[in-house]
Amino acid sequence: MEQTKFLLDESELPKRWYNIRADMPSPPQPTLHPGTGEPVGPDDLAPLFPMELIMQEVSEEPEIAIPDEVLDIYSLWRPTPLYRAHRLEGAIGTRSRIFYKYEGVSPAGSHKPNTAVAQAYYNVKEGRTRLSTETGAGQWGSALAFACKLFGLECKVYMVKISYDQKPFRRSLIQAWGATIVASPSEETECGRAILEEHPDSPGSLGIAISEAVEDAALREDTAYSLGSVLNHVLLHQTVIGQEAIAQMELAGAFPDVVIGCVGGGSNFAGLAFPFLREKIGGRDIDVLACEPAACPTLTRGLFAYDFGDTSKLTPLVPMHTLGHDFIPEPIHAGGLRYHGVAPMISQLMIDGLIRAEAYLQTDVFASAVLFAGSEGIIPAPEASHAIHGAIETARAADEAGEERTILFNLSGHGHFDMAAYDNYFAGKLEDVALDEDEMERALHAIEGLPTPA
Amino acid sequence: MEQTKFLLDESELPKRWYNIRADMPSPPQPTLHPGTGEPVGPDDLAPLFPMELIMQEVSEEPEIAIPDEVLDIYSLWRPTPLYRAHRLEGAIGTRSRIFYKYEGVSPAGSHKPNTAVAQAYYNVKEGRTRLSTETGAGQWGSALAFACKLFGLECKVYMVKISYDQKPFRRSLIQAWGATIVASPSEETECGRAILEEHPDSPGSLGIAISEAVEDAALREDTAYSLGSVLNHVLLHQTVIGQEAIAQMELAGAFPDVVIGCVGGGSNFAGLAFPFLREKIGGRDIDVLACEPAACPTLTRGLFAYDFGDTSKLTPLVPMHTLGHDFIPEPIHAGGLRYHGVAPMISQLMIDGLIRAEAYLQTDVFASAVLFAGSEGIIPAPEASHAIHGAIETARAADEAGEERTILFNLSGHGHFDMAAYDNYFAGKLEDVALDEDEMERALHAIEGLPTPA
Repeated sequence: MEQTKFLLDESELPKRWYNIRADMPSPPQPTLHPGTGEPVGPDDLAPLFPMELIMQEVSEEPEIAIPDEVLDIYSLWRPTPLYRAHRLEGAIGTRSRIFYKYEGVSPAGSHKPNTAVAQAYYNVKEGRTRLSTETGAGQWGSALAFACKLFGLECKVYMVKISYDQKPFRRSLIQAWGATIVASPSEETECGRAILEEHPDSPGSLGIAISEAVEDAALREDTAYSLGSVLNHVLLHQTVIGQEAIAQMELAGAFPDVVIGCVGGGSNFAGLAFPFLREKIGGRDIDVLACEPAACPTLTRGLFAYDFGDTSKLTPLVPMHTLGHDFIPEPIHAGGLRYHGVAPMISQLMIDGLIRAEAYLQTDVFASAVLFAGSEGIIPAPEASHAIHGAIETARAADEAGEERTILFNLSGHGHFDMAAYDNYFAGKLEDVALDEDEMERALHAIEGLPTPA
Repeated sequence: MEQTKFLLDESELPKRWYNIRADMPSPPQPTLHPGTGEPVGPDDLAPLFPMELIMQEVSEEPEIAIPDEVLDIYSLWRPTPLYRAHRLEGAIGTRSRIFYKYEGVSPAGSHKPNTAVAQAYYNVKEGRTRLSTETGAGQWGSALAFACKLFGLECKVYMVKISYDQKPFRRSLIQAWGATIVASPSEETECGRAILEEHPDSPGSLGIAISEAVEDAALREDTAYSLGSVLNHVLLHQTVIGQEAIAQMELAGAFPDVVIGCVGGGSNFAGLAFPFLREKIGGRDIDVLACEPAACPTLTRGLFAYDFGDTSKLTPLVPMHTLGHDFIPEPIHAGGLRYHGVAPMISQLMIDGLIRAEAYLQTDVFASAVLFAGSEGIIPAPEASHAIHGAIETARAADEAGEERTILFNLSGHGHFDMAAYDNYFAGKLEDVALDEDEMERALHAIEGLPTPA
């Protein structure tokens, strides 16, 4: 029998996060204060984040030590397994080898606890007792609820309304870990009330929910804001994924030609890809592919521009690919990928040609998810299924070209809380929505007049 | 940092199932043909099961080789991890050490695939193309759907109606793996129609669903019946759990004083306990505890008697602790434990004093589940939470007696498809139902006139 799982022992957990900033050919451009147009400094961020996270945000050190208290909690589920997808390969009849790193074994069922635990730790250390955050599909909200529970922090989650309605049991999960949750836009914040007044039926968006959570944190001394993606320190914390994967691919006697992840804000993609990009920047030939939904095609069709991270313009201006800060994506089932922007570091890597992106329709993505579930067994999350689809398309293209490739993708989470989406898919009720040209143009008006990146 | 997870490599997967029959001080008494009162022979069972499973059912060999095709699929998730519950120990402040074996990492989220895969394999090998089965909470139905999908078998699942309604997403899971599912009692079988005529609002029971699945298989040449618990061969297949746990406890430098599992039909309990009972029969001092719901207290309050395995009296007569074959337990949330009987081998071990049993109220069980989720992170299934509660009670009792014990329990599945039960618990809507004395007496009338075990 050929080996299926490549495991590392707890003692082999990475002891340091990898900071790709130190190795990037061009560093990401600074975030700007929207009032002054000047780069944002640590003091500007201090009301929202603990100082250690702010320092990580701007650090140029290549490696940052992971605190023992964080490693101790990581060890509840990390190192995560890396699989050779023998059965999926058989199902599609490819000559390529497909591997996947599985982050769904965490208590919250995704990669999100990798940063949630770190963020909760630094907040407790600096005396915060409460965190506020937003969540799309609920993977981030449940991860932060879990981390807060373990560190004894209060936690308030603003959940995008469409997901709040579509995924009731993700809500229950957040509550089971003791957090408070509300559908966003909500009546509990100024921003929420303003949006509800204009659009009482708003399905919500990550941009809106971020506004609410930031407002909540800004108004309370005891509360810090916590973000599950986009920011440099969040991507940093995820790099345990790729570091483990490199060691596990070595156990498998292989190295990937192609590294694939799905991208919403970009954290699971970065987590797997950054340690491999370190090798690529060092001269190794690797194709790094970001997969996004055609309904929210930030990297493939968005503009690289300065834009707000949220809808109500409470955040600094971020240099990133964007569809405009008031863009509200169609309510597709991969709720975690419905974000108008993307992490600035990922945008910069895209501009520098170190990564590329493709956008997929959701019925194609679900077809690949069902093929995967029926061969490898695991029911994947709709978000992670974009990476599965990317891997299958890559293998098929290689077969057509008569090539054999070694493909590695990040299976960032399981789909146990997304079964309603599968029901809709099987019932033929999933709509394929690619972003409309006119709609995109309309959305991009939002960034007119904002500064332009160099 | 003290070690949390004890992992085995894929190459350390047990290669043989352990058959406790070979070591039992008194063998279980034979199952009887209800018409003749004579022991059931292989030919009687041939319409329902493939011959290799029938031979395993009566085998007295201590070990039976696991086919490579089965090991190959086991390797998708096995060996499963064994954890030291440092954080749970801290939360209850015990001096005892608590370990748990976690079976929730399987694609279906429980221990059930251990036998589902084996049963699907032997059926395919002997030319069956379709399996019928029943399911309570849906853990067994989803496990068999998964196994059938991987072996290309059709699968029909009769799901206990109360669970069908309470757990819609477990249904979706079964459908995602391509199986057909119907609420039981259904209009699709003679037994189902008869029960609906008398009790149109019947919440269903495992006993009824078994009747339907057996009738389905008996009427179709291409179809075999598949059972997720109770039978000897089912318990046999689960013994990979305990064999792995013994090796993992060795890695931890420990051996349990107490081994704990929840019991419905008995398969996850047997899976963990039987390999340890081999040691106990060999002279080692181990306390082996079966945990059941007070609403369905088969081992603690049932009679040891010959009884039917199903409500409509289609099965042979089984020597077991029973509450009567037409007993319909209250619709508690641990649907997988709502069975009127128990595996004959477990009953015999109980009579011989090798194991003991306790029954718990569901609000106590959920309180322990929430304590566990908030310390170890994993959201446990309501069934498995009975074992958690047993472990916590055991640790507390040891503390009161000034003793330190090493406790091992089986965390047989996660609760991702049971969040409605958590919602009810938090809303204070869970009712505590212990079986009423009169109700029990009424139910036990069903076994009057049946043969009596020696």
